[in-house]
Amino acid sequence: MRFTIKKDPFLKTLTIAGRAAPVKSAVPALSNIKFDLNEKGLELTGCNGEMTIDSVVPYMIGEEEIIRSASMGKILVSAHYITEAIRRMEGTEIHFEVVDSSLAKIDDGRTSIKLVCANAEEYPDIDLEESGQTFEMSTPDLLDLVEQSAFAASSKETKPVLSAVNLEACGDGTLVATATDAARMARKSVSINADVRFKCNVPARILGDIAHLIEGTGSVRVSVDDKKALFRAGMTVVSTRLIPGDYPVTKSIIPTNFNYFLEANSQELINAMGRLSIFITEKDGAVKLSMNESEVEVYAKNEASGSANEKIQTFSFVGESLSVSFNPAYIVDAIKALRSEDVTLCFVNEMKPFVIKNPKDPSAVELITPMRTY
Amino acid sequence: MRFTIKKDPFLKTLTIAGRAAPVKSAVPALSNIKFDLNEKGLELTGCNGEMTIDSVVPYMIGEEEIIRSASMGKILVSAHYITEAIRRMEGTEIHFEVVDSSLAKIDDGRTSIKLVCANAEEYPDIDLEESGQTFEMSTPDLLDLVEQSAFAASSKETKPVLSAVNLEACGDGTLVATATDAARMARKSVSINADVRFKCNVPARILGDIAHLIEGTGSVRVSVDDKKALFRAGMTVVSTRLIPGDYPVTKSIIPTNFNYFLEANSQELINAMGRLSIFITEKDGAVKLSMNESEVEVYAKNEASGSANEKIQTFSFVGESLSVSFNPAYIVDAIKALRSEDVTLCFVNEMKPFVIKNPKDPSAVELITPMRTY
Repeated sequence: MRFTIKKDPFLKTLTIAGRAAPVKSAVPALSNIKFDLNEKGLELTGCNGEMTIDSVVPYMIGEEEIIRSASMGKILVSAHYITEAIRRMEGTEIHFEVVDSSLAKIDDGRTSIKLVCANAEEYPDIDLEESGQTFEMSTPDLLDLVEQSAFAASSKETKPVLSAVNLEACGDGTLVATATDAARMARKSVSINADVRFKCNVPARILGDIAHLIEGTGSVRVSVDDKKALFRAGMTVVSTRLIPGDYPVTKSIIPTNFNYFLEANSQELINAMGRLSIFITEKDGAVKLSMNESEVEVYAKNEASGSANEKIQTFSFVGESLSVSFNPAYIVDAIKALRSEDVTLCFVNEMKPFVIKNPKDPSAVELITPMRTY
Repeated sequence: MRFTIKKDPFLKTLTIAGRAAPVKSAVPALSNIKFDLNEKGLELTGCNGEMTIDSVVPYMIGEEEIIRSASMGKILVSAHYITEAIRRMEGTEIHFEVVDSSLAKIDDGRTSIKLVCANAEEYPDIDLEESGQTFEMSTPDLLDLVEQSAFAASSKETKPVLSAVNLEACGDGTLVATATDAARMARKSVSINADVRFKCNVPARILGDIAHLIEGTGSVRVSVDDKKALFRAGMTVVSTRLIPGDYPVTKSIIPTNFNYFLEANSQELINAMGRLSIFITEKDGAVKLSMNESEVEVYAKNEASGSANEKIQTFSFVGESLSVSFNPAYIVDAIKALRSEDVTLCFVNEMKPFVIKNPKDPSAVELITPMRTY
């Protein structure tokens, strides 16, 4: 196995595949990137047991020759060493050659590096075939879906299904993403122009990685079966395991009849929460929002250190007087996810979950459960 | 105690004094900043037991009124809470008022904050009086002195005196800084136009903080006695404890007769060390530098992962063939400290400490002990 390759696309693709390669693993082969020089180009694969990333450096990009002097073959190369070596090399072209099955020589004309390698047979078999429901959607729509839902998933593993984003297509041409950590919920729907039907639970962390990896492409081909979801965009395909188990039924928990409505400026609310959160500790404390038609005030207190309050300047409120207490980080996450200048908060009463939405875009809904304060 | 103050200079000075206030301390009062509104202005003091920072917000800066409606007094305010609160407040002017001895009210017209405070009597007495040897020097000279020596001090506390920078003035108008962690040494001297005589060991970490704090001022007044060193620049004075004990005698360990001289480009050496250091672990490994008049090569190897070598392109070497092994991080630190385009490495033999210097500036000398390799 041997090839001469342009440094920049090589490093870029190494970095992509390397995102899945764990620094340490119970399966030593997984600390490597699998190099497979085949008819498509240089195919690089990284895998951590949960997620697999496979990305190809093609022989040509437009008119530019990227790989030359190629002799096909496969080998495993340490993800850490190869990425660090290529990153630091100064040449614009790099020659890679497997000397014997356990040693690769890498040379850019200035630096000569020898890396201990492993046999490609040691790498686990990875299924990257499309199966089950398959459809194509716009990449920006998928990014919206992830950014407006995944933050609300649980970061704890105590109830695994809550660490996932639930994706559901009901055959009506929409794809709905739902995430909840039991104290809050985020839901976003987008059109997909495909009559597929499926439900699956994708680990939220991995879905975030996927969004990052496919950013900048125009469209993404999604394929979902019982075990895995595949996302193919450009020269890269990412596979993730699914989390088994039924996702909580969340549709019925979004209230539909509200008694109080607050419309306010997003940035003003975020800044106010930032100031008040000085007095909130991870274990303790809530911000209290007190509203009536003439005044809206937020307040936070910490017995040991002090308190803060301020009046919201720009608002419109409809309803009787109401006070609601909540975790300010939840409000900030929800408002940021809505990405609108103003937000509407809709309340049933001081104890029922309340809804935050963008008044101009009903496709995303954020739900927050108030906290009891005594 | 009460005052109205412009936010920006208040926050800047809070941040300066707060650098010395520990997040947690066995002495609870030290987690506070001491506020003392006196005839100089608002004097803010932070102290962690080793270092004290005292900085004043004056009533006027030029024609601009900074503090108004002042009623003098003293109080202790949590460094964390007051700094975070002021940082996040949006008003340009802030009103601060002690309501009773345990509560301060802070208001910028938008946000109203109450902070639990402590009595100023609880703060330890701090001696910021000049005593012993006192002189004035240029701030850029002091920064050079610190940057070109302090990095070589030990980061371990096993031999406390090695975690210090030794400052010595011999009455000849020069101030010499020496730091060594036993495997390397850095020495820098500057002129001070003062015939003071003293020796002291200043903790290297604190000396770095001091350099950062006085950056941007023109001159600094230094005062050294048996217990402490004081650095006064602008509206800020920093006091540091000294480390007792005799500093190792280092003058005699710098060789004066050399047999080999390598002159090379600083950036090329740094880049080459960066590439080779991929194969160096914290516990193991050295870069081997092999030199003769026609070729200079660097090489590093790690049994488990691989090896790298490269030829240095720009060099001039005088002497017979020589190979020397060393920790590449030491070479990089030394070259960076010299801040010159080219550096000269002077060797006695492969085992004796070697010297790195800027060929155009003899005021800084860096010494590195080679490593044995088998």
